[in-house]
Amino acid sequence: MKFSINRVELTKRLNLVSRAISSKTTIPILTGLKLKANSSELVLTGSNADISIENKILSEDNNNMLTVVEPGSVVLPARFFTGIVKKLPEDLVTIEVNEDNLQTVIKSGAASFTINGLNAEDYPHLPEIDTNNAIELKGDIFKEMISQTVIAVSNQESRPILTGVHFVLNNAELMAVATDSHRLSQRKIKLPEIDEGKSYDLIIPGSSLSELSKMISENNETVKMSVSENQVLFIVGQNSFYSRLLEGNYPDTSRLIPDTSTTTIEFDNVELLGAIERASILSHESRNNVVKLTINPADEIVKISGNSPDVGNVEEKLDPKKIDGNELEISFNPDYMKDAVRAFGKSIIKISFTSSLRPFTLLPTEDSENFIELITPVRTF
Amino acid sequence: MKFSINRVELTKRLNLVSRAISSKTTIPILTGLKLKANSSELVLTGSNADISIENKILSEDNNNMLTVVEPGSVVLPARFFTGIVKKLPEDLVTIEVNEDNLQTVIKSGAASFTINGLNAEDYPHLPEIDTNNAIELKGDIFKEMISQTVIAVSNQESRPILTGVHFVLNNAELMAVATDSHRLSQRKIKLPEIDEGKSYDLIIPGSSLSELSKMISENNETVKMSVSENQVLFIVGQNSFYSRLLEGNYPDTSRLIPDTSTTTIEFDNVELLGAIERASILSHESRNNVVKLTINPADEIVKISGNSPDVGNVEEKLDPKKIDGNELEISFNPDYMKDAVRAFGKSIIKISFTSSLRPFTLLPTEDSENFIELITPVRTF
Repeated sequence: MKFSINRVELTKRLNLVSRAISSKTTIPILTGLKLKANSSELVLTGSNADISIENKILSEDNNNMLTVVEPGSVVLPARFFTGIVKKLPEDLVTIEVNEDNLQTVIKSGAASFTINGLNAEDYPHLPEIDTNNAIELKGDIFKEMISQTVIAVSNQESRPILTGVHFVLNNAELMAVATDSHRLSQRKIKLPEIDEGKSYDLIIPGSSLSELSKMISENNETVKMSVSENQVLFIVGQNSFYSRLLEGNYPDTSRLIPDTSTTTIEFDNVELLGAIERASILSHESRNNVVKLTINPADEIVKISGNSPDVGNVEEKLDPKKIDGNELEISFNPDYMKDAVRAFGKSIIKISFTSSLRPFTLLPTEDSENFIELITPVRTF
Repeated sequence: MKFSINRVELTKRLNLVSRAISSKTTIPILTGLKLKANSSELVLTGSNADISIENKILSEDNNNMLTVVEPGSVVLPARFFTGIVKKLPEDLVTIEVNEDNLQTVIKSGAASFTINGLNAEDYPHLPEIDTNNAIELKGDIFKEMISQTVIAVSNQESRPILTGVHFVLNNAELMAVATDSHRLSQRKIKLPEIDEGKSYDLIIPGSSLSELSKMISENNETVKMSVSENQVLFIVGQNSFYSRLLEGNYPDTSRLIPDTSTTTIEFDNVELLGAIERASILSHESRNNVVKLTINPADEIVKISGNSPDVGNVEEKLDPKKIDGNELEISFNPDYMKDAVRAFGKSIIKISFTSSLRPFTLLPTEDSENFIELITPVRTF
């Protein structure tokens, strides 16, 4: 194999594929990065037990300055190879593999590196997934869907199924829901152009989705999603992102969301976030990290308070946009509240309570159908 | 005590003083930050075993919006107090201490924090240092002097004296020198306006100097340095920075610097740094982190090479500006070389060798009198 390429572009692509590569893997060849060149493209692959990322660098794109002199493939130690390319002196880099011993010479300007490669035949094959039935998602909306649900994913391996986000496609609507059993976050997207009969039910690890999200740029690319029995493939531009699926049945979350309430308040989201952050400075120091909300609709008073026996206490009067229903005193983990409120962006947020021991819901007033969050309060008496 | 103040300005000053405060101290009151207000100023103090920082906020500066209603003092838990002030909702903050129980109320907008304070009488006194004999240094030059010498300070506590920088004032010249016994860095500054008879000899911990350096802004303030028996005080604008001195005799370093050489090369500093960085990518993987320089003046060839048995090797031809003297092959730790070269900024650097086993020197061609660095090679045969 021999090719030359734009060093800056190669660095960018190596960084991208390296996200799938862990130096802690038990399979030595997976610490490597696979390169495969033919006359029209260079394909980079990185993989670990959970995800694989494949990136195509096309020779037809002049910016890549890709010239393949001799097709072929090799696996190079990912961390060194990336480190070397990043530090090379010139804009163009030439890479040549000795097919007999797989020694690879990397040249740029007066610098010449020789590193030991591995046989690409020994690199694991990526799963084969039929992409004919892919569903197409708008990049920015799907990215938002991910960020709004992964916050509620469990990070405890005791119930592995809760470390994933549950995706259900039905009646031309994609729903994603996650819960760690203390809080829940659910987002829906309408997909009018999808066949109503098409349905999926899959659980994708939250950590895979967080990585995938970094790959979706802000300029609203299309994300194509294809599913096989135990893998999902997302195609974003020149990248293919594979993730394993979690096996098992996700708990039925639909019955957790209350449909009635006895007290409701509406807040400016930025204002509420500030107050919660202030209250949590002290609650973080206390053994049971909770803050208390005191709601008095008759006097239009809402107070938030936090307290640490060692350090001191804080109290703040909030300024709700709207307030209705019964008096209530309720305590909760401010960190769950912070995550939940941040997921709304800039908007007016409606919080609905039923009692100080029952979960309460948060939803955006401008689109109350498609996004809802749920937080379980903490009993303090 | 009761005062109100500009929250943004207070946050800035708290961050500054907090640099001297460690949460790991064994003296509980030192985890606190002392506040002392009188009609004209608020003084903040932070301290640990090595350094103390005092910052004055003057009421005459309108930007501070400082109004002292009632003079007094208190010690507040540094981390919380700083965290609280940073998160407060409005531009103005009011702080009021209950003199009976030292409970301190911090108010801004609708938020009200109550935290437990400590008695300022129990806070250690700062050393008293006579500032009448202070010497004045130009901020930017002194900052450069610090950055050029602290790189050679030892980080091993086995010879504590080498963890400091040795400052000697003599004949209206200030010299700073540091060595960890593998490398040495020496910088001189002429101080023509100083009395020739004045002399100092002191050793300041490298870590104190690094902290001090962050406090000297780029806009070339004057730094006033005063010395007592075991403390040094630097006054920079509204800040007083105290550091303990290291006790003992610093080794005589003057005889370490060779005054002859048999091979000399001149490099563009940026080019040399790039080549060293590339060579070190592989040397870092080898047990004895060394790179080799091969100098052949007759053919005007200089080569740098690095090698790791596991990963591979690198070789690069360098393009010296000038080359003189005998052939030489010399090996050294590339990290020492990187630190040394970075200390020069953008310039042409002259390296002088005597043999492959003797220390070599680096100096800037445009000012060869005032700055010199020394690196001990590594024996590889």
